Amino acid sequence: MKIYDFEGFPNPARVRIALSEKGLANQVEFVSIDVPKGEHKRPEFLAKNPSAAVPVLELEDGTTISECTAITEYLDHTGAGPKLTGENARERAVIHMMQRRAEASLLDAVGAYFHHATPGLGPDVEDYQNKEWGEKQRERAIQGMHYFDDVLADRPYVAGDKFSMADITAFAGLGFADFAEIDIPADCRNLIAWRQRVAQRPSISG
Amino acid sequence: MKIYDFEGFPNPARVRIALSEKGLANQVEFVSIDVPKGEHKRPEFLAKNPSAAVPVLELEDGTTISECTAITEYLDHTGAGPKLTGENARERAVIHMMQRRAEASLLDAVGAYFHHATPGLGPDVEDYQNKEWGEKQRERAIQGMHYFDDVLADRPYVAGDKFSMADITAFAGLGFADFAEIDIPADCRNLIAWRQRVAQRPSISG
Ligand SMILES: N[C@@H](CCC(=O)N[C@@H](CS)C(=O)NCC(=O)O)C(=O)O
Ligand SMILES: N[C@@H](CCC(=O)N[C@@H](CS)C(=O)NCC(=O)O)C(=O)O
Repeated sequence: MKIYDFEGFPNPARVRIALSEKGLANQVEFVSIDVPKGEHKRPEFLAKNPSAAVPVLELEDGTTISECTAITEYLDHTGAGPKLTGENARERAVIHMMQRRAEASLLDAVGAYFHHATPGLGPDVEDYQNKEWGEKQRERAIQGMHYFDDVLADRPYVAGDKFSMADITAFAGLGFADFAEIDIPADCRNLIAWRQRVAQRPSISG
Repeated sequence: MKIYDFEGFPNPARVRIALSEKGLANQVEFVSIDVPKGEHKRPEFLAKNPSAAVPVLELEDGTTISECTAITEYLDHTGAGPKLTGENARERAVIHMMQRRAEASLLDAVGAYFHHATPGLGPDVEDYQNKEWGEKQRERAIQGMHYFDDVLADRPYVAGDKFSMADITAFAGLGFADFAEIDIPADCRNLIAWRQRVAQRPSISG
């Protein structure tokens, strides 16, 4: 397997954590795509992912998979270790729901703020900006933090008793928030404690 | 099982098609939530889905599941009939990827146009509008139509040889486009032919 990504960026981080959780990290060859230089918008890369974003997983047969949820589904049904996407219908449903909420109200909201209301990745990459939309998404991200803080009041992980893909998305969302300088409200104590706990997992601290 | 939704709306349609494909339609009690009147923003409903949107699946134990992908995962791992989310790692990955592309570049793009650049569901529901953002998403939806037209040039269904969750999302996206008066470009012949074919499935023509 190959992974095309850019180390340190939030969506690539999701797949790197999943690879490590599933014990697959040493079966992958990483290929760096220079996103700040716009390499993800060149024809060679668009042939791999027409959505012009990293990460992309390339299988031995040449199939290319974009979207972290899709890549995580692949890894979770291939590697060993605990299931990141659930073991039965109910778990799968809760994990996919919470994952989608973490994307919409944390990771993608922070991303929209960063790309629309700040200089983002610079003029070569940011070909359309809508500042008002970006600011609105910043508010949404802060609401998202409060929402996940509430969720974590009565459970150890975002989707229940077990660490899952939903935690990975939320964790990456908070990493992006740091980078974009959106502070976690100080009263989000459950969220802050959860984050410290998750940061100690070998797949992240290691 | 209960489904809270509003008949005729695009996201509810996704779950109704999945229920029918999986032979589960007669095991569900539908509860109508009057979205145009803002019933989905009232506290009773927000307790079921804090994201304030339909559809929501309620299980016998009271667990509530929002997000069509999550509900479809539940139904697909519960009901009989062909798998909508794939039978192995590779199929799951391709289906989730194409599903996400259909959401981002068709269904949600059309939704953003409708809610931001038209009167949408009216002033009681549309509490924030950003017309420029909505117009940009209209362009994205048309690009999405061209993208799926290309995809369908060499395969019968959006994710390959078999009908899947990705087809359901794309089909609902085109239904929403009709409603929002975004025409499918006439040269999107593969997309138009695929749509006619999918519309004949018993789960849709019903
Ligand atoms: N929904 C996508 C998001 C991918 C994404 O946005 N990746 C960022 C890097 S963290 C990117 O490539 N951005 C390119 C750009 O903004 O032009 C996923 O799940 O993989
Ligand atoms: N991503 C959600 C989208 C749900 C959604 O947006 N539903 C629409 C009806 S088609 C809704 O309830 N809209 C409420 C509103 O716009 O305020 C899903 O997959 O279920």
